[in-house]
Amino acid sequence: MRQVCFGIDIGGTAVKAGLFDAEGKLLDKWSFPTKRTEEGKDIVADAAEFINGKIAELKLQKENIIGIGVGIPGPVKDNGDVLELANLGHGYFNIAEEMKSRTGLNVKAGNDANVAALGELWQGGGKGYRNMVFVTLGTGVGGGIILNGSILAGSNGAGGEIGHILVNEEEMVTCGCGKRGCLEQYASATGIVRLAKNTLEESEEPSKLREADEISAKTVFDCAKEGDALAMAVVDKACHYLGIVFSHIAQVIDPEAFVIGGGVSKAGEILTENIKKHYNKYVMTTLKNKEFKLATLGNDAGIYGSAKMILSTIGR
Amino acid sequence: MRQVCFGIDIGGTAVKAGLFDAEGKLLDKWSFPTKRTEEGKDIVADAAEFINGKIAELKLQKENIIGIGVGIPGPVKDNGDVLELANLGHGYFNIAEEMKSRTGLNVKAGNDANVAALGELWQGGGKGYRNMVFVTLGTGVGGGIILNGSILAGSNGAGGEIGHILVNEEEMVTCGCGKRGCLEQYASATGIVRLAKNTLEESEEPSKLREADEISAKTVFDCAKEGDALAMAVVDKACHYLGIVFSHIAQVIDPEAFVIGGGVSKAGEILTENIKKHYNKYVMTTLKNKEFKLATLGNDAGIYGSAKMILSTIGR
Repeated sequence: MRQVCFGIDIGGTAVKAGLFDAEGKLLDKWSFPTKRTEEGKDIVADAAEFINGKIAELKLQKENIIGIGVGIPGPVKDNGDVLELANLGHGYFNIAEEMKSRTGLNVKAGNDANVAALGELWQGGGKGYRNMVFVTLGTGVGGGIILNGSILAGSNGAGGEIGHILVNEEEMVTCGCGKRGCLEQYASATGIVRLAKNTLEESEEPSKLREADEISAKTVFDCAKEGDALAMAVVDKACHYLGIVFSHIAQVIDPEAFVIGGGVSKAGEILTENIKKHYNKYVMTTLKNKEFKLATLGNDAGIYGSAKMILSTIGR
Repeated sequence: MRQVCFGIDIGGTAVKAGLFDAEGKLLDKWSFPTKRTEEGKDIVADAAEFINGKIAELKLQKENIIGIGVGIPGPVKDNGDVLELANLGHGYFNIAEEMKSRTGLNVKAGNDANVAALGELWQGGGKGYRNMVFVTLGTGVGGGIILNGSILAGSNGAGGEIGHILVNEEEMVTCGCGKRGCLEQYASATGIVRLAKNTLEESEEPSKLREADEISAKTVFDCAKEGDALAMAVVDKACHYLGIVFSHIAQVIDPEAFVIGGGVSKAGEILTENIKKHYNKYVMTTLKNKEFKLATLGNDAGIYGSAKMILSTIGR
């Protein structure tokens, strides 16, 4: 019987799980609400129970299961230690050990954005690269870095936390992380809406955005694509900050490519081309003209990456 | 007979070479002027000839020589490919292959700052760490990053080029790299002198710096240590930019420690403490309180790192 593995992506509202063969083919996938009882202390037990249920239901033999990869929304060390998990209410624990003791399977854990990066490198927009930076522009800005085909977890599991790189020392509004002037405050979906509202308030310039019932990042990009000057200025400002941060990252790790995912990336080439324009102004000659790609796996990047993470432990 | 290896550090004015045993003990070291004939095209041949001469003079048996590590002042890929070597006048070539063909020994090449970083990690200020950022504050600002004990070379050999990270978009003066507002323009020895001169010009504030015949980075730090307010403001500004760049690096790779070398680092704790103060303002909680150390190998960091680089190829 063929070898399989599970890839799990634990999020604040939903847990996604996928069953993969050893070659990376997605055989089946499921999603269920994150169990948020007692500040999330049952989340891991609940996910383990789900997997045990699937193993029974699908009549899988444990010797044919390579293991489980798990992505969680917070810093995780390479050994599975979780230091803080703000959204999931846990204190210190080792997620890999807890999951292993509940399923009897090998478990490898990683940060959700790092894991999604690995998924995109394996089967998505980063296919063919070995050194890649993945950035998700969604409610927040997440990042994941892959070097030589492996996740850069960092010494405290905080590698790739690029959403909280300083871009504007003059900012007066506090970011979710407690600092001020983080990239996330300008380049997340929320950040782009905030930039748009501020720009509308500060000028009298006519703009289609003034007619919108509610402004979303999509509205901003749609108006920019139609040539609306004010919307274009907002897009340009967000991309300016992204270009600067990408230049910082390149000066540090010199990757082959940047892959952009998350809801905002649905805007497409207007986003990648604009970021690239700003990026090229701020890097040394050797670092110019990196590849700027769009992610392709959408919400499945996490389960793909989790599966790849556990497959990597056996050299696949 | 015991196994030995050579560590070479090719610089713009001098070539340093060291003979090491396999445990990392420096047995002997030499230095000679860099051969700058025909824009530097003979540098590698000259260094190879020097090594061949030493092998004959010391009656070393080739089977006892593990190989040669070489650090050069420019981007080098992992395989030894050199794309540009601004200060040494070479076009494209593979330094590892050229050196190997001239000596008959195994050769591994790396960028000088990256190699010095490895040296400091192995036998210097970074001893005991596996993930470290090394920064040299000299005529320029160089950087080297070590992850899991190995140099992060980057996809084009430009990993760790942190001296050219943008810190000030408003800068009007062009940096040596062709961009404007690079860290190097404020935190190198030259940059600190420039900051001091600008500050003196822009204010009427009394300062001991006004009495100096010639201002050097050392003068600035010495006056700051004596409590000179204007000198302290200059130090604070340089450390502010260093703190910001270190925060960017930490958000990207989450290292264990920062090790600071180069002439400016002779200022000592006034430098590390001041950088740390600024750094902690700009990083996420998980990344606060990293170690800030001073380099200890001085000009020998390069030969140590080169030796370690070739020893690593045989798993030492």
